[in-house]
Amino acid sequence: MEMTNVAIVGLGTVGTGVARLLLDHGDRTARHAGRTLWLKKAVVRDLQRPRGIDMPKGVLTDSLQDVIDDDQITVVAQLIGGLEPARTIMLSLMESGKDIVTANKALLAEHGPELFTRARELGRSIAFEAAVAGGIPIIANISQCLSANQIRSLEGILNGTSNFIVTQMDENGADYADVVREAQQLGYAEADPTMDVDGTDAAQKLAILAHLAFGATVDWAQIPRTGIVGLDPDDLRYARKLGYRIKLLAIANLAEDGLELSVSPTLVPEGTPLAEVRDAYNAIQVIGDAVGPVFYHGLGAGQMPTASAVAADLIDTAVGRTRLTFQTLEYFSIDQPPRVKLRDADTSSGRYYLRLRVANHPGTLAAIAAVLAQYGISIASVIQHEGSDGRVQLDPVPLVIMTHVATEGAARLATADIEALASVTGPVVRLRVKD
Amino acid sequence: MEMTNVAIVGLGTVGTGVARLLLDHGDRTARHAGRTLWLKKAVVRDLQRPRGIDMPKGVLTDSLQDVIDDDQITVVAQLIGGLEPARTIMLSLMESGKDIVTANKALLAEHGPELFTRARELGRSIAFEAAVAGGIPIIANISQCLSANQIRSLEGILNGTSNFIVTQMDENGADYADVVREAQQLGYAEADPTMDVDGTDAAQKLAILAHLAFGATVDWAQIPRTGIVGLDPDDLRYARKLGYRIKLLAIANLAEDGLELSVSPTLVPEGTPLAEVRDAYNAIQVIGDAVGPVFYHGLGAGQMPTASAVAADLIDTAVGRTRLTFQTLEYFSIDQPPRVKLRDADTSSGRYYLRLRVANHPGTLAAIAAVLAQYGISIASVIQHEGSDGRVQLDPVPLVIMTHVATEGAARLATADIEALASVTGPVVRLRVKD
Repeated sequence: MEMTNVAIVGLGTVGTGVARLLLDHGDRTARHAGRTLWLKKAVVRDLQRPRGIDMPKGVLTDSLQDVIDDDQITVVAQLIGGLEPARTIMLSLMESGKDIVTANKALLAEHGPELFTRARELGRSIAFEAAVAGGIPIIANISQCLSANQIRSLEGILNGTSNFIVTQMDENGADYADVVREAQQLGYAEADPTMDVDGTDAAQKLAILAHLAFGATVDWAQIPRTGIVGLDPDDLRYARKLGYRIKLLAIANLAEDGLELSVSPTLVPEGTPLAEVRDAYNAIQVIGDAVGPVFYHGLGAGQMPTASAVAADLIDTAVGRTRLTFQTLEYFSIDQPPRVKLRDADTSSGRYYLRLRVANHPGTLAAIAAVLAQYGISIASVIQHEGSDGRVQLDPVPLVIMTHVATEGAARLATADIEALASVTGPVVRLRVKD
Repeated sequence: MEMTNVAIVGLGTVGTGVARLLLDHGDRTARHAGRTLWLKKAVVRDLQRPRGIDMPKGVLTDSLQDVIDDDQITVVAQLIGGLEPARTIMLSLMESGKDIVTANKALLAEHGPELFTRARELGRSIAFEAAVAGGIPIIANISQCLSANQIRSLEGILNGTSNFIVTQMDENGADYADVVREAQQLGYAEADPTMDVDGTDAAQKLAILAHLAFGATVDWAQIPRTGIVGLDPDDLRYARKLGYRIKLLAIANLAEDGLELSVSPTLVPEGTPLAEVRDAYNAIQVIGDAVGPVFYHGLGAGQMPTASAVAADLIDTAVGRTRLTFQTLEYFSIDQPPRVKLRDADTSSGRYYLRLRVANHPGTLAAIAAVLAQYGISIASVIQHEGSDGRVQLDPVPLVIMTHVATEGAARLATADIEALASVTGPVVRLRVKD
């Protein structure tokens, strides 16, 4: 049987999982690749660190040069996170003739055009299934399986850490800080979970998906994003009362006047597939003009789900499919003009959930409704607290408003005006509502 | 730009949809294929029949020979249903050097080994994404995206017609015969819907998936199957009362002693993804040992969803990916021994729902429970009718029993013994219950 020599650079959680698939399940990868995928080298920083895996003698090395100098190694799973030295390592691997498989979404979101252009110049390929949604093969599905469609919209729960935290807060009434600690203990959240909970991670993944699905060339940092930091348990409770769940939703929506992109905590109707996505799961609903809606659900992170995606890419690269796809699709090409322009966020429209703390006296609601009306925003429903909690008179009292469809611009301005009202205390919580 | 000349054989619903994608959206297919997919010929039986599509001059023909003789045509979407002449046409197209894309699952389930072996001899490829689950790209997902996994199980709602009928019966209390008529009017059911409602269609699709996922070589007719014909509204009602929905489930489950395959109406717990699949939708839950559970949901039939799958295959074939996959995977090879044996259906185990009509007197339940106990089957719960309906005394009365886990063999034998009891009237309804 033919053989493809493979190296892994970075033997963290995912790298160890990939090594396990290659070493323990060679028959399986051989059957799907039509050749043996032989793990020849695994590059680590610290040779002494225990990794819970028996490596054959001679595989483990702390010298990247060992891989670069080995002409027999033709495919490398580059599994180092962050931007540098990941970028430099990927470039030198490609320059020494290796095809790349990576899970590093931050690197692609930040340096995609540079890396992909260089790969094309060198006749190399980059596969990145594991960069978005872990075990859900969304990259292949958008790039190949749904290729006869114009994708109309894409809505996803792309950050498992955030979804775990929100699910625990929602279902167990847990406190944000406590759940973050629990997520860290379970390995769902990093020691510093900022990129997960502030929406950065989801925005980087959305930028990649928006490029594949719509040909948008978008800097992830331009995507309007709100994370789940500071999400108030009160909002989860009110959402439930109204028949919704709150999810950190990444949205790409193609309209007449351009592509709308956003990441934000959103009220999703109960009983719809996205509302039922729990814990560390990811899910993506794609709507194509021919295929209609297709829904994907699976584990968005974790050792073996991500390793499953990396190993599938290694197989595709060894078989030769990756090269054909890579050459054909010209992803992240500097020469290709974007096929779609980003829509002015203010012109996007939808329904909104507003939660305010207001003075407990008649006329307050009238004043707020007047501001909304001024911006052309109608009220769909109101939950107004009775104003007394047992025997204690409350002031201010909470007020929740669900609007009918309004533009983001109008909703933003109206919210600012409402916050300026004397009868309104503190900031207004404003969340999007999915139909 | 390079060009690949394509022909369509059979311009029915799906064929017309494919023609539409090729003719109206050439930019899209060109972008994903890196070359123009040029529809050169479309072969029909009746040139006069209106098809609701403007064909460029010279494309429509009633001569298959036009395609066979045209060496420029390298890829053919063979969209004729049934076994003959579809089989003969496919063979002669391959012999004249064309790669094939097909949606004909019955042909593959029946003649897969012959067709695939011949294709390999001739250096041709057969792509068949559209043969299973319409718009859900389950073939590519199992064959490529999840290729690093040992698939553990596969549970699917694979027949949209049956699911539409069951949903309408369940949600609107509609009568079986009425819903079948409605499904026919909506185009969800054939004039003769036998293959859909007796489980044949689902079994053929399951046989294909079981081959791809497990390497099982299975005659679809060997798969134990029950359709939804004769499904009683009472069972839908009782299932709901117990917290379940009834779905026609196709199951492939890998156990120590072999692969279990079955198609049958099954009680699926409410709130789980498969229970929420409504109307003509299909869904598949795949569990892989690395990736964990991945769930797919989409339209399982219909013109454009199926055309989306066919066109994606045309693109993959034009790019060259199909050939690489086809050469590597050796699907339906006569030379390849099956990698897994089928399990004796009697040894598979699960919980069961039993509905009986029993004599309205004390001791009846005891007699039934005694039979079940004799076969080692414990009762989990019982719904026993009170025996009077307003002022009318009922006899026989309905009795519903949910068992704990039992083997299929024990459940089958116990059911036969229960039917033989004097206090039991008529046949016992026995349905599987999914955990």
